[in-house]
Amino acid sequence: MALYVQKYGGTSVGTIERIEAVADKVKSFHDAGHQIVVAVSAMSGETNRLISLAKQIDAAPAPREMDVLVSTGEQVTIALLAMALQKRGVDARSYTGWQVGIKTDSAFMKARIEDIDTANMRQHLDNGGVVIVAGFQGVDDDNNITTLGRGGSDTTGVALAAALKADECQIYTDVDGVYTTDPRVVPAARRMDKVTFEEMLEMASLGSKVLQIRSVEFAGKYKVPLRVLSSFTEGNGTLITTEENDSVENPVISGIAFNRDEAKITVKGVPDIPGVASRILVPVSDANIEVDMIVQNVSDDGSTDFTFTVHRNDYQKALKILNELAGELKAREVAGKDDICKVSLVGVGMRSHAGVASKMFKTLADENINILAITTSEIKISVVIAEKYLELAVRALHTAFGLDAEA
Amino acid sequence: MALYVQKYGGTSVGTIERIEAVADKVKSFHDAGHQIVVAVSAMSGETNRLISLAKQIDAAPAPREMDVLVSTGEQVTIALLAMALQKRGVDARSYTGWQVGIKTDSAFMKARIEDIDTANMRQHLDNGGVVIVAGFQGVDDDNNITTLGRGGSDTTGVALAAALKADECQIYTDVDGVYTTDPRVVPAARRMDKVTFEEMLEMASLGSKVLQIRSVEFAGKYKVPLRVLSSFTEGNGTLITTEENDSVENPVISGIAFNRDEAKITVKGVPDIPGVASRILVPVSDANIEVDMIVQNVSDDGSTDFTFTVHRNDYQKALKILNELAGELKAREVAGKDDICKVSLVGVGMRSHAGVASKMFKTLADENINILAITTSEIKISVVIAEKYLELAVRALHTAFGLDAEA
Repeated sequence: MALYVQKYGGTSVGTIERIEAVADKVKSFHDAGHQIVVAVSAMSGETNRLISLAKQIDAAPAPREMDVLVSTGEQVTIALLAMALQKRGVDARSYTGWQVGIKTDSAFMKARIEDIDTANMRQHLDNGGVVIVAGFQGVDDDNNITTLGRGGSDTTGVALAAALKADECQIYTDVDGVYTTDPRVVPAARRMDKVTFEEMLEMASLGSKVLQIRSVEFAGKYKVPLRVLSSFTEGNGTLITTEENDSVENPVISGIAFNRDEAKITVKGVPDIPGVASRILVPVSDANIEVDMIVQNVSDDGSTDFTFTVHRNDYQKALKILNELAGELKAREVAGKDDICKVSLVGVGMRSHAGVASKMFKTLADENINILAITTSEIKISVVIAEKYLELAVRALHTAFGLDAEA
Repeated sequence: MALYVQKYGGTSVGTIERIEAVADKVKSFHDAGHQIVVAVSAMSGETNRLISLAKQIDAAPAPREMDVLVSTGEQVTIALLAMALQKRGVDARSYTGWQVGIKTDSAFMKARIEDIDTANMRQHLDNGGVVIVAGFQGVDDDNNITTLGRGGSDTTGVALAAALKADECQIYTDVDGVYTTDPRVVPAARRMDKVTFEEMLEMASLGSKVLQIRSVEFAGKYKVPLRVLSSFTEGNGTLITTEENDSVENPVISGIAFNRDEAKITVKGVPDIPGVASRILVPVSDANIEVDMIVQNVSDDGSTDFTFTVHRNDYQKALKILNELAGELKAREVAGKDDICKVSLVGVGMRSHAGVASKMFKTLADENINILAITTSEIKISVVIAEKYLELAVRALHTAFGLDAEA
């Protein structure tokens, strides 16, 4: 007998039929003798509907009241799922964030969980019941309703699993696991059986939007085994774990992430003196523009070229800031490109395998793909290339690193 | 400076535009220096939408979960109204039932308020803020969400007013007050400036569906002055009060209520012995049929005729029960009519004025309207007549008792 926390996202509970299907699934685990705690999102579309009501009143509504408003979405789902389970003879009971005692700080719309009181849940589980918890929400010390921000239901699931010391936190979603890369780009992409938290973090932040990144960090920190699986099909999904794969067949590269919405700005020929990086980047971040990759090369003549990437939506704004700064920075030139993308190899195997970078570069060269910038970390190599080569590059790398599924 | 509790129903907050209009109204009271507590219903249609979601899962969903579900409707409204007031520079703050401390028993879907903790509200009011409370909902001793049943937002308003010792509880609705009778039937019907709780109870139970009857009882019990007024037009509405009108112009009759959906069943010639009434009515109420008027006449030969009225929807069912019972009851005949209606004169002035009944009967006789049954109470006389005479009867009585508005 195991204790599982199962999280079902908005698509998985998007209609009454799907809620009934989730009830069937939960019941099958319960019938098999497991203790089940379920965390659910709002029915898909509901959160957006509520937000649009608020925006009709005020473009920037009070965050406290936003949380009162949007937290109703998950409250609807827990009630409906509890009804569906009770109809199936399962003693299910719903809990809102405040009822289950999910204590958070008071940062409305982006609160962080501080503590979970597990007494109520434990009692209901020990009586043979199923516990259904509203994801995404909590309560602060002054009894204000708080929410964890978009995707916060994943965080709720992981936090519940950590607090209850669950055997596994299962994140049910509309994909059947984490893939070596996006199957829409590489039809031969393979579902991974296992991936490490570190790899998952690199994949998630790079665009494999299966899991909310904070929930992965959280699961890693508390060593909660996390499994991503489909609520629509059978299968074991992908287990995200602290254990590195140490079998002989341990792949060097676990997956290939990519991000299409990139733009790059290069400040050429700035004096290579201390503080130049911050003089370039502080005005950018002051304008609320998030910077992704940062690359700096030293040249011989005491000047340097400084390159960074931003989201394509912020490109024009960032370019304008840098053009205005160019004189003050004594830069020779400010150049930019917004038809670029980023492709990254991710894998803990890189640590123990030399030659990953050179193999990557050779693979791209063989396809005549020019590399515009490179950054590396312990378990990741990222390159910037022209966007038109994205599919070609990802497919070539996927094959070269042995990730293709067997035909 | 006064303390007002204002309750806005579903139609008054049915759209974003209407919520904005309510915010304007609340702000104008607040600007005038009054302390304002607002209780709101769910946006019109929302409660039915939620119930229909539940019914798709289970025809008889668990009451505890129903309350978790439907209580979200009012929670949405409080957040939106708080936002609208904040946009107008008013320090408004929303409270759910559990946040404000509306303690109820555990009778889900029909809970009764046991206690209200006013500390939070008082503090926010004393700081110059407006308090917005979700109507219709509370919390039991085990932190379960409860609801008060349909129309419970009125009860919330009155209970808040009682707990806060408010100067007035103002029920904003889509009519501008309580009328002497239904203006759709009698165009000359007048809005009453004042009506007593007792009169209002007789009017409400007879079909003037302006206020939930429980809230009127509650207001009467705690002597909370209750005012019904329109959220769409200006005006003083109708004040419901404990004070009887003692001016010289005190009308004998305050209003005329009527109910169209009646049916009557007469059990003729049953032996006039103790227990016969209960032997007739217990099987009827066991079948969950509500009985309204009950009339019994003694005849000379030791037998009696027993007449009662039920809702027209229950007529066939009740008739079938009585026909099956007829032999056992030794009844001569069971007869019924479902094309009847009830017309009632209501007024505390009746207590001190003789001749109301005879004037009523004469008025009807002058119009050739036959009376099928009569019951009376301290402040009410009801007659059953054929439904086709309803409008004629109400108009004739309205004129005869001097209720018509001046032209």
